Amino acid sequence: MMDRERLIEKITDEVWRRVRDEVATSGHRGTEIAELIGAGADRVGLRPGGLAPAEQVAALIDHTLLKPDATRAQVEALCAEAARHRFKSVCVNPTWVAHAARKLTGSGVAVCTVIGFPLGANVPEIKAAEARRAQDEGAAELDMVINVGRLKSGEHDAVRDDIAAVTGVRRRGNIVKVILETCLLSDDEKRIACQLARAAGADFVKTSTGFSTGGATVDDIRLMREAVGSALGVKASGGVRNRDDLVAMVRAGASRIGASAGVKIVSESRS
Amino acid sequence: MMDRERLIEKITDEVWRRVRDEVATSGHRGTEIAELIGAGADRVGLRPGGLAPAEQVAALIDHTLLKPDATRAQVEALCAEAARHRFKSVCVNPTWVAHAARKLTGSGVAVCTVIGFPLGANVPEIKAAEARRAQDEGAAELDMVINVGRLKSGEHDAVRDDIAAVTGVRRRGNIVKVILETCLLSDDEKRIACQLARAAGADFVKTSTGFSTGGATVDDIRLMREAVGSALGVKASGGVRNRDDLVAMVRAGASRIGASAGVKIVSESRS
Repeated sequence: MMDRERLIEKITDEVWRRVRDEVATSGHRGTEIAELIGAGADRVGLRPGGLAPAEQVAALIDHTLLKPDATRAQVEALCAEAARHRFKSVCVNPTWVAHAARKLTGSGVAVCTVIGFPLGANVPEIKAAEARRAQDEGAAELDMVINVGRLKSGEHDAVRDDIAAVTGVRRRGNIVKVILETCLLSDDEKRIACQLARAAGADFVKTSTGFSTGGATVDDIRLMREAVGSALGVKASGGVRNRDDLVAMVRAGASRIGASAGVKIVSESRS
Repeated sequence: MMDRERLIEKITDEVWRRVRDEVATSGHRGTEIAELIGAGADRVGLRPGGLAPAEQVAALIDHTLLKPDATRAQVEALCAEAARHRFKSVCVNPTWVAHAARKLTGSGVAVCTVIGFPLGANVPEIKAAEARRAQDEGAAELDMVINVGRLKSGEHDAVRDDIAAVTGVRRRGNIVKVILETCLLSDDEKRIACQLARAAGADFVKTSTGFSTGGATVDDIRLMREAVGSALGVKASGGVRNRDDLVAMVRAGASRIGASAGVKIVSESRS
């Protein structure tokens, strides 16, 4: 006989799965389901210490392993975890995209990869080539780094065109996220970068690479959400280490979370 | 009237310039002059505290600015310094290669850039595309990062082929340096990486990106020099901050130095 808690969890899981599948198959961008979660964070119980379906939390998370010395075995473990917990995606370096895509076939977990990462300081044509290649190999989500140096030099057209080079090769149903590397920017530069990302047709703005001097902050998420309104997703990444961090980011306006601690976060959401 | 020290310096400079020009125009690779300096470090007076011609020291240095938020003005200042002090090259991110090449036309200073930097975790075809593009825009030296994750996974053929993808598009007279990111490797892995770089036709092995957990050490330079013998150059990079650091690296076997402190190092060599 099934106890009450188990029954609640099972029904919640099933309802959640149908909602998610409905959105996924209705032709909307993945952005929108994340927006829905972002907007409804309070309603669905994403409060510190409160209860929330673990699957709902997992669906916010890009399960991330970008360190350069990650091995094939570690990437395979990441994929297995993502399939088990139903994370939104695995986020891996380009060298592992094809392998991750094979491992995750039929799992419902997307493959996310990084473009111009983590410095953002290569040329637009190469970022576009990276994006094409990654999609050829099975990536559905592309997290690209803006050209920070050009932004700092006031070359806004160059920054926008650099983003547009990637959104220009984005295939139907795929997503481009634009990493601002907020720790290197002034608030004005963050706002400008958000506007340029939106103008260039990006789907998300994202805070951080995790390879610079700082990660996501609640203040930055709030600033970015104000800058893009409901038009784009906002991804918090870098330093999101537990469920309270995640909830704080979602409440500030994040609709996606990049984290290497996804398994811990989800398990905290179950307890 | 010219004082004695000034006269010595001027004659030394002139002799050095002629030697350098001779090597540069004789069809040899740039590697070889650096080797010459490496082998002759004691003979030419590269001793801590000793006197050495500043130009000789400058000719060892890739004057480096790779931080992602470097501005156009900072890149221009770097180029001006390189031309003034006659550094071997400026090392800049791909986004600034064309601009640096224009600024340095006729200066005798090469443009060096980075490929697959700093994680080394993209695919060989993209590294090759980056290398072609950078050479199109005027880069003569290409510092590529090995695929550390594949090395850690024991996929040695993949590591070698990844390097060969870049050496395969190297144009006549240009140089490919292979960054091992030594701080992430065991000594055995460092030796294997040196062998793979040599097998793939690289011109140099290089210690570090400057973006990981550690930089060049004397022990690593010694290990790498032993591993490649006199066949390849060895570049010490990451944490070479003054003339004593430089001399220690050269004495251990380095034939090239990557540093952002080049102006300071050269001025110490004048005093």
